[in-house]
Amino acid sequence: MAHFEKTLNEETVFTGRILTVKTKDVILENGKEQKREIVLHNGGAAVLPVDEDGNVFLIRQFRSPFETEVLEIPAGKLEKGEDPFEAAKRELREETGFTAKHYINLGECWPTVGFCSEKIYIYLATGLTQGKTDFDDDEFVTTYKYSFEDAWSMCMDGTIKDGKTLVAILKAKELLGK
Amino acid sequence: MAHFEKTLNEETVFTGRILTVKTKDVILENGKEQKREIVLHNGGAAVLPVDEDGNVFLIRQFRSPFETEVLEIPAGKLEKGEDPFEAAKRELREETGFTAKHYINLGECWPTVGFCSEKIYIYLATGLTQGKTDFDDDEFVTTYKYSFEDAWSMCMDGTIKDGKTLVAILKAKELLGK
Repeated sequence: MAHFEKTLNEETVFTGRILTVKTKDVILENGKEQKREIVLHNGGAAVLPVDEDGNVFLIRQFRSPFETEVLEIPAGKLEKGEDPFEAAKRELREETGFTAKHYINLGECWPTVGFCSEKIYIYLATGLTQGKTDFDDDEFVTTYKYSFEDAWSMCMDGTIKDGKTLVAILKAKELLGK
Repeated sequence: MAHFEKTLNEETVFTGRILTVKTKDVILENGKEQKREIVLHNGGAAVLPVDEDGNVFLIRQFRSPFETEVLEIPAGKLEKGEDPFEAAKRELREETGFTAKHYINLGECWPTVGFCSEKIYIYLATGLTQGKTDFDDDEFVTTYKYSFEDAWSMCMDGTIKDGKTLVAILKAKELLGK
């Protein structure tokens, strides 16, 4: 039998620009009551760009929760109801200047299933053409180029820690036969 | 030059059992002010158990943010200051009944760097001995056994969506030479 919980009531305790936080009272399978804390997030789209020589393009930006720069694949938040593939193409263009001839869907990554509804839709982009970047006003990012092998090694040795970036590079390795 | 932001002030807008939510006013590199919404979380520890025949053990449990069951590796929240490796061993024992002779550190996964401070510490466990499970009062989980190849295929075909589980299985494939 599938596991389940039944929500008795819920309350919105914070409404921000990107996050909504709710508390829920739920009934568990044993009939006991439990509180849940849930973060609602519209989700994101992310793209691993790989050029014809097998180089990977990653970006560095300051990430406030860690108070440091983080190395990641280009990505951005979805607007409510936005198509993830359109968002992925937009973020790739805005953050790296690339447009891509070919996209492969690398599937969904649900980063924090315990408390947050975010889904990240990940794509692999090849057949790249370099154009101009077009950052949002509040975005400060720098693009770095790595060989696929180096990027993969940085996943395996712990240099790359960002979840969606790990998933993208590790899945792409299989698909690209690297 | 490294990218940076400077925090002007911050306010705690929600304090829960597992999450604390803050808003920050920051100054960006261009001198403009921006608001950040940050979720603080103590982090987690997760373990991929693989037996001597190459089978992996995954668990299914109801996850409130998605209102459905999710297939994951055994994992749990860290208490503040808790050693991730000790937590990983505990969660493996509690959720699957296994103790393991050998652990390999699969590194950190930072699942949602844009808005949450959570770090997940991931381990691969081999040399398994089956004991008794010991669930927390509010935990209802079922363990499923898969061949490594099937678990890996479920990562690649999108059946497995949980971020830490994708990272664990994809990294383990490389390390175990599967």
